[in-house]
Amino acid sequence: MARSRLTPEREAELYEAVLDLLREVGYDALTMDAIAARTRSSKATLYRQWGSKPELVAVSLRHSKPVDVSQIDTGSLRGDFLEMVSQTDDCQMERDTALMRGLARAVHENDDLLQALRELFIEPEMTGLDAMLQRAIDRGEISADNPAVKFVSHMLVGAFVAHPLIKDQPMSQGFLRDYIDAVVLPALGAR
Amino acid sequence: MARSRLTPEREAELYEAVLDLLREVGYDALTMDAIAARTRSSKATLYRQWGSKPELVAVSLRHSKPVDVSQIDTGSLRGDFLEMVSQTDDCQMERDTALMRGLARAVHENDDLLQALRELFIEPEMTGLDAMLQRAIDRGEISADNPAVKFVSHMLVGAFVAHPLIKDQPMSQGFLRDYIDAVVLPALGAR
Repeated sequence: MARSRLTPEREAELYEAVLDLLREVGYDALTMDAIAARTRSSKATLYRQWGSKPELVAVSLRHSKPVDVSQIDTGSLRGDFLEMVSQTDDCQMERDTALMRGLARAVHENDDLLQALRELFIEPEMTGLDAMLQRAIDRGEISADNPAVKFVSHMLVGAFVAHPLIKDQPMSQGFLRDYIDAVVLPALGAR
Repeated sequence: MARSRLTPEREAELYEAVLDLLREVGYDALTMDAIAARTRSSKATLYRQWGSKPELVAVSLRHSKPVDVSQIDTGSLRGDFLEMVSQTDDCQMERDTALMRGLARAVHENDDLLQALRELFIEPEMTGLDAMLQRAIDRGEISADNPAVKFVSHMLVGAFVAHPLIKDQPMSQGFLRDYIDAVVLPALGAR
């Protein structure tokens, strides 16, 4: 996809507008027409650069994430996890939770959205997480053959999904820190 | 709630009919009228015995679960977890996944359903899980002050939610067994 015609600032603006619209009307009611109108772009440009609505949504989510795991390298695994947590404030976490819930619904009915999210959002995210874990293995903090290494994303997703379901409380940095120390690091046998 | 007028067999039949209807039409389109018609009961009876649609759905789910955690006691924590897994075959797990996804959607829009599920489904389930963990503490398999004890449900929910999202594969007994050995028991420091 040729993106050379948009500046990074313009791209960031466009991604933010897509997420704003998504919050306002939901995935089903979101149209390329509405995105074009809101961002004052042509639909032809949107389709040429992002291919489709699910792809544009997935890329927008990825670019607007408060945390870029691949940019975190504190020198210890626990430090990296806690840095991930501290880069997202509680207020933002609640806002994102609402957005992700709306998307969770849309995913059930739109298989192309699930495919786009996997390819453009989940997989790059997993790659960043894998690199973080690989550095911990290289430093000798965790063992390469620990079977929990491949389940770190499951543990993190569990914290996000189960917490609001079980307790009537929004997600918070404090909860996530406790969970990392109580579950994630012990399961990894982190030294 | 007085339930004395229905035999256990009649109750079980009614719960199964509620879930069948739920699978057919979804939560939003499910009506007490349709349940009354399908089960040849009067709406008055349904309301008198279960109070409301969300409560009836939550109780039906609870009674139709293939696994009753409170009935499991193999003598070891790992044995109890593996028994939970082996009581659900892969086919049933896929069927339940579809049902739970539909409900996950409904929960976002129906706060009374979330409340009913918490009270009538999640909490009793947690009580069974807590009893299982308490026995492991009493046997000295895990330590009472291990902070992971209160997060076991988060770990299990994570396995169920993250797996189909990350991998394009349905949940399976094999996956759950690996996850229990790789994540849940090590996080608990089970001896």
